[in-house]
Amino acid sequence: MIAITMGDPNGVGPELVLKAWRAGDLHEAEAFERGESRQVGTEALARAPERAGAAGGVAQRSNRSEASALPPRAATVVIGDLAVLESCSARLGYEVPLRAIADPGEVDAEALNVIDLGAMAARKLAPGELSAEAGRAARAYIERAVRLALERRVDAVVTLPVNKEAVRLTDPGFTGHTEMIAELCGATRVAMMLATERLAVTHVSTHVSLAEAIRRVKRERILDVIHLTHGALSRFLPAPRIAVAGVNPHAGEHGSFGREEIEEISPAIAAAREDGLVVSGPEAPDTVFVRAVKGAFDAVVCMYHDQGHIPAKLLDFEGGVNITLGLPIVRTSVDHGTAFDIAYRGIASTKSLVAAYHYAVQLIGGPPSS
Amino acid sequence: MIAITMGDPNGVGPELVLKAWRAGDLHEAEAFERGESRQVGTEALARAPERAGAAGGVAQRSNRSEASALPPRAATVVIGDLAVLESCSARLGYEVPLRAIADPGEVDAEALNVIDLGAMAARKLAPGELSAEAGRAARAYIERAVRLALERRVDAVVTLPVNKEAVRLTDPGFTGHTEMIAELCGATRVAMMLATERLAVTHVSTHVSLAEAIRRVKRERILDVIHLTHGALSRFLPAPRIAVAGVNPHAGEHGSFGREEIEEISPAIAAAREDGLVVSGPEAPDTVFVRAVKGAFDAVVCMYHDQGHIPAKLLDFEGGVNITLGLPIVRTSVDHGTAFDIAYRGIASTKSLVAAYHYAVQLIGGPPSS
Repeated sequence: MIAITMGDPNGVGPELVLKAWRAGDLHEAEAFERGESRQVGTEALARAPERAGAAGGVAQRSNRSEASALPPRAATVVIGDLAVLESCSARLGYEVPLRAIADPGEVDAEALNVIDLGAMAARKLAPGELSAEAGRAARAYIERAVRLALERRVDAVVTLPVNKEAVRLTDPGFTGHTEMIAELCGATRVAMMLATERLAVTHVSTHVSLAEAIRRVKRERILDVIHLTHGALSRFLPAPRIAVAGVNPHAGEHGSFGREEIEEISPAIAAAREDGLVVSGPEAPDTVFVRAVKGAFDAVVCMYHDQGHIPAKLLDFEGGVNITLGLPIVRTSVDHGTAFDIAYRGIASTKSLVAAYHYAVQLIGGPPSS
Repeated sequence: MIAITMGDPNGVGPELVLKAWRAGDLHEAEAFERGESRQVGTEALARAPERAGAAGGVAQRSNRSEASALPPRAATVVIGDLAVLESCSARLGYEVPLRAIADPGEVDAEALNVIDLGAMAARKLAPGELSAEAGRAARAYIERAVRLALERRVDAVVTLPVNKEAVRLTDPGFTGHTEMIAELCGATRVAMMLATERLAVTHVSTHVSLAEAIRRVKRERILDVIHLTHGALSRFLPAPRIAVAGVNPHAGEHGSFGREEIEEISPAIAAAREDGLVVSGPEAPDTVFVRAVKGAFDAVVCMYHDQGHIPAKLLDFEGGVNITLGLPIVRTSVDHGTAFDIAYRGIASTKSLVAAYHYAVQLIGGPPSS
């Protein structure tokens, strides 16, 4: 059971969940019966069966990998506003059958099920506009979804985009979607994975200045992120191979320019290896992503936001998935914003949502080890 | 007339120049007669005629652009050691006709012409090995080539790779290939452009720690690099469109994380616009490269080494060209190292060398404006 938060009512969230459901992308059983492969994920992750085969004779690994390569299936419930979805569906001529339910246990396979919070009236909708009501509603969907996940009434949460400025109109202390979810969960050691079809990256820090990001390149935090990365990859692959990027050009060239590699990154890698993980680095940041894409690594641990985001977005601008590691719940997210400029026009791509949904299904079974 | 330095005799330099000459890639007249297009450069640069056409009615621009889209042609002279090239050619069965000349004016169109410095004896060759003699010889080739260029006896210098450690065995103060050339030229305001088929990037700093790179994000330096970028692009395109990346995630989100965009980058952009340049930014670093590749910009000014190198190498690992802007001479370089592991095996790719040669030809006609 996957809960999808509707996101800011004035953004592309409502239409994306309608569009994806309508295309059969959020009720996999049917697609699976039609014989379609809807497998998404990094190529590295998709290589699971092949790699297990190459390893040879490790039946347990092979079975596990083959199982994870099947199209994932789950029931879906939207946490949002029925009136907004009805209005959006009507505006776009989607004719999606919507059903309000009070509890995830009541889902009806013939409709798109909605836990209706009644947080935003249809008449208040203003597609593409910043609105305090919309921001407050978007925040309410997240709270409810996280609560349902913490209570184990849903297995995972997939989030559609909120607008930070809109949320701040009623909650000035709001720093970000992920930060809010981490706080609701009481989690302090989290990391962001950005997964695209060809590359998976995790980050030692995200939304801080680059100067602050360098200060956060510390052995203990790097080791945490390596373990979080390993835990997530282990759901897809046996013995995942993790590369750790340096922070300086050429990974500092043996201390010639920058000592973080020597003092912080290498010790973290050594500690991770002592824990039995397959980890290499510190790798030169300008070549490690090419090597990962070519198959040398299953993921790259990055030292700052753009080190991971630049290559991931270049490889797959529309289909990236944001996965929060280290939470007591499974949470994935689209990797795009509310796209106010194209909201309610039906042209936004569902690629990231569908990928986020599939990752969530594959990650179910307990949170990544931390 | 293009001078190509042979690079470290024990690396892939000698075989690359032989291989490229043998394939007809360094004597363009012939290839042109065969009707082959050997145009290389960024797609943005290759779009020149199209863009000029779209602008419509600007005959001067159109003519200039069409001219620059023709396959460039030039005579070539290698600055190196005849004995090394003969040995390399014999080992690989290349049978390249080699001719030693004393002056670039003596080039013979039927042979690969070499200004023979006699700096390295063939019997001292040790492919793939770090050697003081090889390092000293590689350094000598650079000195001679730069001198010839400063004396206007050659029009441009294309450099093959040296090994920094090998050069340091006899010149401990050697900090880098580009730094040495800048010093020989007495140039202090230089910038590195990395050009690939789909993306051109320039850098505010290169081989310094990331912490130091942030300290170098200063208005005056950024403005210099914008002008240097504009000057180089202007040889290929009318009114080039330059994007300037921020240094912080999301370009700092209006000062939320990092103030360099507000205090240093934006003022530099404003000053460049006052000078009549087409400049946008500060752009979010994680999306600006996708936009450039899609055609929104002709080049991206980057705030640090990896910001530009990560996307450029991901897009084109073998064919990147390093162009030094701000010198009184034209200098381009391959964007790879000596590749000791595959030296003298004939398998190294000439793609970067051929691209560097073509850029050099296109940049001839005086140094980029600074």
